[in-house]
Amino acid sequence: MGLIVQKFGGSSVANAERVMNVAKIVTDTYDAGNSVIVVVSAQGDTTDELIEKAKEINPDASKREMDMLLSTGEQISIALLAMAIEKLGYPVTSLTGWQIGMKTNSNYGNARIKSVDTERIQKELDDRHIVIVAGFQGINKYDDITTLGRGGSDTTAVAIAAVMHADLCQIYTDVDGVYTADPRKVPNAVKMDEITYDEMLELASLGAQVLHNRSVEMAKKYNVNLEVVSSLEKKPGTKVKEAVRMESMLVRGVAKDEDVVRISVVGVEDRPGIAFQLFSALAKKKINIDLIIQSLGSDGKNDISFTTTKGNLKETLAVIENLNGVLNAREVKYDENVAKISIVGAGMANNPGIAAMMFEALYDAGINIQMISTSEIKISVLIDAKHADVAVRAIHDKFIK
Amino acid sequence: MGLIVQKFGGSSVANAERVMNVAKIVTDTYDAGNSVIVVVSAQGDTTDELIEKAKEINPDASKREMDMLLSTGEQISIALLAMAIEKLGYPVTSLTGWQIGMKTNSNYGNARIKSVDTERIQKELDDRHIVIVAGFQGINKYDDITTLGRGGSDTTAVAIAAVMHADLCQIYTDVDGVYTADPRKVPNAVKMDEITYDEMLELASLGAQVLHNRSVEMAKKYNVNLEVVSSLEKKPGTKVKEAVRMESMLVRGVAKDEDVVRISVVGVEDRPGIAFQLFSALAKKKINIDLIIQSLGSDGKNDISFTTTKGNLKETLAVIENLNGVLNAREVKYDENVAKISIVGAGMANNPGIAAMMFEALYDAGINIQMISTSEIKISVLIDAKHADVAVRAIHDKFIK
Repeated sequence: MGLIVQKFGGSSVANAERVMNVAKIVTDTYDAGNSVIVVVSAQGDTTDELIEKAKEINPDASKREMDMLLSTGEQISIALLAMAIEKLGYPVTSLTGWQIGMKTNSNYGNARIKSVDTERIQKELDDRHIVIVAGFQGINKYDDITTLGRGGSDTTAVAIAAVMHADLCQIYTDVDGVYTADPRKVPNAVKMDEITYDEMLELASLGAQVLHNRSVEMAKKYNVNLEVVSSLEKKPGTKVKEAVRMESMLVRGVAKDEDVVRISVVGVEDRPGIAFQLFSALAKKKINIDLIIQSLGSDGKNDISFTTTKGNLKETLAVIENLNGVLNAREVKYDENVAKISIVGAGMANNPGIAAMMFEALYDAGINIQMISTSEIKISVLIDAKHADVAVRAIHDKFIK
Repeated sequence: MGLIVQKFGGSSVANAERVMNVAKIVTDTYDAGNSVIVVVSAQGDTTDELIEKAKEINPDASKREMDMLLSTGEQISIALLAMAIEKLGYPVTSLTGWQIGMKTNSNYGNARIKSVDTERIQKELDDRHIVIVAGFQGINKYDDITTLGRGGSDTTAVAIAAVMHADLCQIYTDVDGVYTADPRKVPNAVKMDEITYDEMLELASLGAQVLHNRSVEMAKKYNVNLEVVSSLEKKPGTKVKEAVRMESMLVRGVAKDEDVVRISVVGVEDRPGIAFQLFSALAKKKINIDLIIQSLGSDGKNDISFTTTKGNLKETLAVIENLNGVLNAREVKYDENVAKISIVGAGMANNPGIAAMMFEALYDAGINIQMISTSEIKISVLIDAKHADVAVRAIHDKFIK
């Protein structure tokens, strides 16, 4: 018995039947003696339909008006879910972002949460009402409606769990937890009972789209107990917490990221400051760089290679072009047919053999490694994109049996 | 040049093309040097679609949650219209009911406006922004969303015109003004340039559904200059104001109301207090009574006949049944096949010949009059429903040539 925040995504409330299913999960939790706050997203395709309506009128509509429009999707969901819970005979109150004082900055379309008022939610909980909150939306200091961008409803749920000091924040999805690799691609993938915030962060940033990083970061910061759980079947999910009990399994997951491009600046002078000038120019343009390799060529010149997302390619090449007076590069090359394969695990840092095992798995599969990057809890390699799925399976089966 | 409030109904913003059309009307008004506040309803069938969604889940949903749901319709409209105005290159801000502090009582589904904050709207006008306001919605003292019921967006527009001291409040509709009779039924119907609040009230309550009575009552109370104007063609509409210039035409309109039932309590005792007890019992049940006739029968007993709306029939008969110990009526009869035909005109009271002309028109058309009621600016008769359209035409052509 305690205070539980439950978050349901758009597919979980896509139609009347699924809304009733969510109402059942929520009221079962309430019947077990818990106080329940529910966060919901817009129904299934509602957001896409609203975007379509907007595009028909003005493809370049302001982000403020887009947020005004899109926030209606979650408002529809909360009202319908509240009605479903009323039908089951339970006391319930739906609340929008502004009604719970979900204050954000003014970055329309991708706003950051600044604070949440607890008063209204607490009043409803004190009355033993189930509280339904609209995810994804807030208001800025002008009382204008903002939306939180990708993964916004997860972030709403974690923020509310944090300020309300909830005992647990459950993220209901159409998968039943976090796996060691994408189970659709890797038949031997294993569901994990527990995972640390940091491991989850690495897995999420590597393309395992179960939880958005913003919500995990916030959960870590405020020490919110997260659980990823299935809205379709009743069984334990994956708990995300600060520390997990030690297991023999050091590698917690294998992930693949195909939204990556490798750029090589070939034949630059080998003198101090070259790399600094290149990467500070890119940082000024807010271009995120991932892997970096600098190697000395046989002619006494350096080659600098790095990766970024495909969407940044054009701007990155422009930055390099502008810097050519400084870099004096012989050639600039890029390759979009690459994939980044990563293994994640909190115990990795103290086990030097892990990287060797990963490279061995790739060698056995005949896959060439282009770049390598390591961190405390992650090892990433860049390989040819066409080998990506084979590489994930090979590495996964090497570590997780 | 001044401050103009323009209200557009659901059919005026039903699709992208119509939204662009409204944007053109609004920006033309702005270009003429005016400050413009626009009030919009939900697009075409949006409200019906939302009600359908709700019914699928819970046909007996609470009114609070229905208001939470339905208010999204207007929010979608204001965002889309703002985007259309942005496309035309004008500065614009859309605002919901809570953003303009549209405070109402807590009568969900049919709330009454208590006050409107002027601050936010004024700030936007000072910045020379076109302001788009969601009609039909407000918030109560708990900060919960309410809706205003039928004609709600008209009422929103008039309330804003009142508090902002607007020079004019234009109600755009798919007709081009107020006619002396329903132009689809009466070929000779004439559009009026001007009409008084009271005349408009009488016409509206008699079924001429151009403006809802609540908005006209509010316009009268705060002396808001109203204009009913076409959103489809650019031409002058009908102005609704306190006094209009005297015209030869005393009768301002002929209206038909078919939602009426006649109930007769036959053979009650002719003693004081009988009628009082009947009608106070009906008033307690909030049953509105319209025409009343009491006539002395040949047997020294009274017959009391009165009319109400068809929806009240069942409850009215129950009230009479309960009172039977007091009334001792011989018989209770009712007739649903009746219609009320009314003529309205401010100059009528001082012209005793008007009623006679109306009765003559009906006599000439061979139509029997069942009941008669007169007021300062209205004469109503009850007739057989099957003669209703003929009666309207006959009376209209007698007065308006």
